Amino acid sequence: MNIGILGSGMVGQALATKLVSLGHSVMIGTRDSSKLAEFTQTVPGVAVGSFAATAAHGEIVFNATAGDASLAALEQAGTENLRGKILIDMANPLDFSQGMPPSLSIANTDSLGEQIQRAFPETRVVKTLNTLAAPLMVDPGQLADGNHHIFVSGNDAEAKAQVSAFLQAEFGWKEIIDLGDITTARGTEMLLPVWVRLWGALGTPMFNFKIVR
Amino acid sequence: MNIGILGSGMVGQALATKLVSLGHSVMIGTRDSSKLAEFTQTVPGVAVGSFAATAAHGEIVFNATAGDASLAALEQAGTENLRGKILIDMANPLDFSQGMPPSLSIANTDSLGEQIQRAFPETRVVKTLNTLAAPLMVDPGQLADGNHHIFVSGNDAEAKAQVSAFLQAEFGWKEIIDLGDITTARGTEMLLPVWVRLWGALGTPMFNFKIVR
Repeated sequence: MNIGILGSGMVGQALATKLVSLGHSVMIGTRDSSKLAEFTQTVPGVAVGSFAATAAHGEIVFNATAGDASLAALEQAGTENLRGKILIDMANPLDFSQGMPPSLSIANTDSLGEQIQRAFPETRVVKTLNTLAAPLMVDPGQLADGNHHIFVSGNDAEAKAQVSAFLQAEFGWKEIIDLGDITTARGTEMLLPVWVRLWGALGTPMFNFKIVR
Repeated sequence: MNIGILGSGMVGQALATKLVSLGHSVMIGTRDSSKLAEFTQTVPGVAVGSFAATAAHGEIVFNATAGDASLAALEQAGTENLRGKILIDMANPLDFSQGMPPSLSIANTDSLGEQIQRAFPETRVVKTLNTLAAPLMVDPGQLADGNHHIFVSGNDAEAKAQVSAFLQAEFGWKEIIDLGDITTARGTEMLLPVWVRLWGALGTPMFNFKIVR
């Protein structure tokens, strides 16, 4: 499958590494391709392009940009290149301007997921994977045999079903909870403040939430 | 032990029922004792008093009032009656004024736990138990044999240790994570938006978070 990944940071690189190893045609979109010079030598087979070229390339597009840069990056990607597509939004609206731990730049009455859906009404936004560390996003089985949860939020039931099937088939996710429409992204984005404090308390980011019933 | 419980709602009643069954001397504090007429017939042995009398009674005091009423209730309880004591803050700053699901009236840069600690600097506030349904707070073993988590936040390490020991001995909590100082209450209070949406998605409030490592 042709997959576009917007964002060249740790999350984008983890995604690209995994997806290219599975045989997908992967392009990473970045403003500054020189940042990926080392990565593309280490992981051959990953194409690098502009945000627009990457969005055009992808049948599915991941938003792996930093939350405070997401809307600008998506504007550059272009409405045309995102029309009708599934956009998997993994970003969190974190504000690092006051130092650590970060706060949320949006809370309560909005979310980055909703902002993106409003800005791109013809794109089917699914919020997911934003609640855990990059290595676990693409390989949940390394923790408790994959027996822990991620969440999907979105207005399009079929898009959520497709994304869930993708996460299961490609990354091995077994436990996916559909929280409801895109407004439920508020809840998962607001997991970040406890997530960063758990990282501090546990001394590692390699953990995840499991919903025990 | 003499225990004071501020708040006569579902949480306060669940706490009182459990603690009196364990042989503690329990007083519930309320503005309106008539609300507890039925409860005190069903669960004999629970005393009912004013907020001030209840705080004076307790060696440990629980804040089980609604979040938007907590500071006013604690003012009525009185600085004198709370001085030097451990105050277990279980409330969440939920705003139901816009309907369901509730939003948080505080987020990001403050928390109800911090507000209470600031208002009562001589009281040792420990934030805990605010992340799950009342029946599970006092009986975690009914879910997955107690194999799931609660969190403690507070500035006083000894108070957190005492509260953790209390939660273990009285309620059977096996898994308690010390997140750090009282500012980490922001994180656990901000779990509520995903908690209410999980309740909707799962159709039951009888679940809890487990941190899988």
